[in-house]
Amino acid sequence: MKVSELGEFGLIELVSKVVDANRDSESAAWKQVLVGIGDDTAAWQGDGCVQLATTDSLVQGTHFDLKYMHWEDLGWKAIAVNLSDIAAMGGVPKYAMVSLALPGELDANCVVRLYQGMVEVASRFDVAIVGGNIASADKVNITVSLIGSLKGKTPLLRSAALPGDLVAVTGYTGLAAAGLQMLKHKLKLDPKSSELLSEAHLKPVPRVKEGQNLLRLGVKAAIDISDGLIADLTHVCKASKVSATINKDLVPVHNILETHFPDDCERLALAGGEDYELLFTASNTVMEKVKRSVSCPVTVIGEITEGTPGKVKIVDNAGRTPDWQKKGWEHFKSER
Amino acid sequence: MKVSELGEFGLIELVSKVVDANRDSESAAWKQVLVGIGDDTAAWQGDGCVQLATTDSLVQGTHFDLKYMHWEDLGWKAIAVNLSDIAAMGGVPKYAMVSLALPGELDANCVVRLYQGMVEVASRFDVAIVGGNIASADKVNITVSLIGSLKGKTPLLRSAALPGDLVAVTGYTGLAAAGLQMLKHKLKLDPKSSELLSEAHLKPVPRVKEGQNLLRLGVKAAIDISDGLIADLTHVCKASKVSATINKDLVPVHNILETHFPDDCERLALAGGEDYELLFTASNTVMEKVKRSVSCPVTVIGEITEGTPGKVKIVDNAGRTPDWQKKGWEHFKSER
Repeated sequence: MKVSELGEFGLIELVSKVVDANRDSESAAWKQVLVGIGDDTAAWQGDGCVQLATTDSLVQGTHFDLKYMHWEDLGWKAIAVNLSDIAAMGGVPKYAMVSLALPGELDANCVVRLYQGMVEVASRFDVAIVGGNIASADKVNITVSLIGSLKGKTPLLRSAALPGDLVAVTGYTGLAAAGLQMLKHKLKLDPKSSELLSEAHLKPVPRVKEGQNLLRLGVKAAIDISDGLIADLTHVCKASKVSATINKDLVPVHNILETHFPDDCERLALAGGEDYELLFTASNTVMEKVKRSVSCPVTVIGEITEGTPGKVKIVDNAGRTPDWQKKGWEHFKSER
Repeated sequence: MKVSELGEFGLIELVSKVVDANRDSESAAWKQVLVGIGDDTAAWQGDGCVQLATTDSLVQGTHFDLKYMHWEDLGWKAIAVNLSDIAAMGGVPKYAMVSLALPGELDANCVVRLYQGMVEVASRFDVAIVGGNIASADKVNITVSLIGSLKGKTPLLRSAALPGDLVAVTGYTGLAAAGLQMLKHKLKLDPKSSELLSEAHLKPVPRVKEGQNLLRLGVKAAIDISDGLIADLTHVCKASKVSATINKDLVPVHNILETHFPDDCERLALAGGEDYELLFTASNTVMEKVKRSVSCPVTVIGEITEGTPGKVKIVDNAGRTPDWQKKGWEHFKSER
C-alpha cells in the first residue's frame, strides 16, 4: 500500500508496531520511558525530573510556499510548532536543534534570516539553540527537535480524558487556516484583519505558559490544535478510548472570521489546522479554576462521554447534528 | 553569496554568529549549556548528569541512492551516524526521535523496512526510539535526533587538543569510501572483500563503547571521522587552535584497500569520509593506557603541535611532504 493511501496516522501506527515489537523490557533506556510514539512529545524519567522531546518538520511545497512566507517567519514557525508540542504536555521548553536541508543555489542571507526568526521566538520562550545539521537538497526541509522538562510527575496526555470531563479550547480556532486562504488567494482585507490573519498563519504564538498553568491546576489531558479542532479532539478520544460531543455553536469564532469568511467560518474553526491553541479536558471543578487563573480566553465547547473510542459527535445549540457530519467528516474537511 | 559557495562549514559559522548574537546571558537554558553549535553534539548540565543531543540527516540524492541502498541499511545508517556523534563525546546514547519526509507514492512496506533497520541498531546500543514526525515530500529525508548522557563532568571535545598530544585513530579508515566506490561503479570483488566494504559504507558500527572508554581513561579531545581523516583532524585543530603533523605512512590502511584500490588507497584512507571511526588526541601516558584497554585497533599517526590554528601537515616516513599536499588539499580530495 502506498504511503499516501495509508496516511500520516496509519503510518505512525505501522512504525509504532515495529518499534514496540522490538522493545526490550530489560533495556535501561526503555525502562525510563513514560510516553513513547503517539503523543505530542515523548517523555522519560530523567535523573531529577521528567524530560520531554519532540520533533517537527516544515517541508517546502508541503508546509510552506516561499511566495508568501518570509524566511524570518519560516524560522519562527519551525521553532513555534515544536514549542506548541511541549506546551501541550505542560512542559518547559529548553534546548533546540535545527536540521536544515537546503538547495546549494539558495542565497546564504536567507539562512541568516531564517535563523533570525528562530532566535526571535527561541529567546522569547527562553530556549537555547544548541546544535543542528546542514545538508544539501533540492528543496528546503527544516526539522527542529526540542527538548524540555516538566514541573510535575505526569505530563498532560492525549490518553487521560475521562467521561464526564468538559472539553475546552484556548483562544480562537480557524484564524491560521483563514490566514493561509488569504495569503494563497491574495485576498485584500483591511490592514488590521490582514495582519491578524497573516500572523496567525505565519507566526503562531504557542501557549507555553498556558500549558504549564493547565498542568499546575490539575488538568490531565491536552493536545495542541495542529490538525484542526475536530481532528485533534478525535486523537484525544482515540488515545483515551472515549467519545466526545461538542456544540459547534460554542466554538469560539473570531469576529474577523465571521466578517471576512461568513460562509466558511464554521468549517475553518472546526477543521482549519495550525492554530496551535490548546484543546484540553478537565472536570467541572478544575475547569472553573482554569477559567479564573489562565490569562487567555478559555471556552468550554462540549464534553467527554463513554462510547465508541475516537468518536466525536457534533451538535448545534438545538441539539441537531449538522448536515455535513452526516455526509462524513473527510468530505467536509476537504471542501475548499 | 550562494549556500554552495559558502559551504557547510561556512554556513555553520554564519548561523552560529546569529545564535551567539542573541544569546541571553540571563537565560536559564543558556546558563546550563556546556557545548553549543560546533562540536559533535550539544551538551548541557542536567539535574543529575551532563546531557548530550545531536541530529543528523540522510537526504536522498545527497547522502544515498536507493539503487544500492536497502531500506533496512538506510534505517541502520540514519541511527548509526547519530550514535557516532554521541560516541565522539564519550557519551551514552539513550533516546532517538525520527523525522521522516517521504513521497506519497512510496510503498509503506519500505517504511517498515526502514524502521526495522533503525530498531536493529537501536536495540544493539540500548537506544529507545520514542517519537518522531512524518511529512510528505518529493524526496526522502530521514532526520534523526539522539539524546544521551555522560558518565563524567566534561565530554570529549574537539577543542581540547593540546600541543604535545599524540593523534590516534580507532580501526581503519577509507573502507566506507571504498565501499561507496564499489557500489556506485558496480565493481566485482571477492565475496569477503565485497561484504566488508559494503558493510563499511551501508552499516557502519559506531564506536560507542570505545568513546566511553576513551573518556574514562582520561582522553580529552575526540571527533568521529565523518568528513574524512584529514578534514576531521582539521576541525579538531581549528577548534583547539593548534596545528598537527601526521605521518601518512602510519595511517592504518586495511589490506583489502591495498589489494583492490592500490592506486587510491592512500587518498581513501586520508580523505574518504563516513568511516565513523574515532580520531582522538592524548598525552603519551594516556595513549599507552588506551592502547592496553581498548579492544579495537588504535593507531598513533602523528602529533599535535603549536602553530597556525587548523593547519594539518602531512609527511611520510622519510619526513617528506607528499606532492598532493603542495598542490592543495581540496584538489587532492576531489580527485576521483
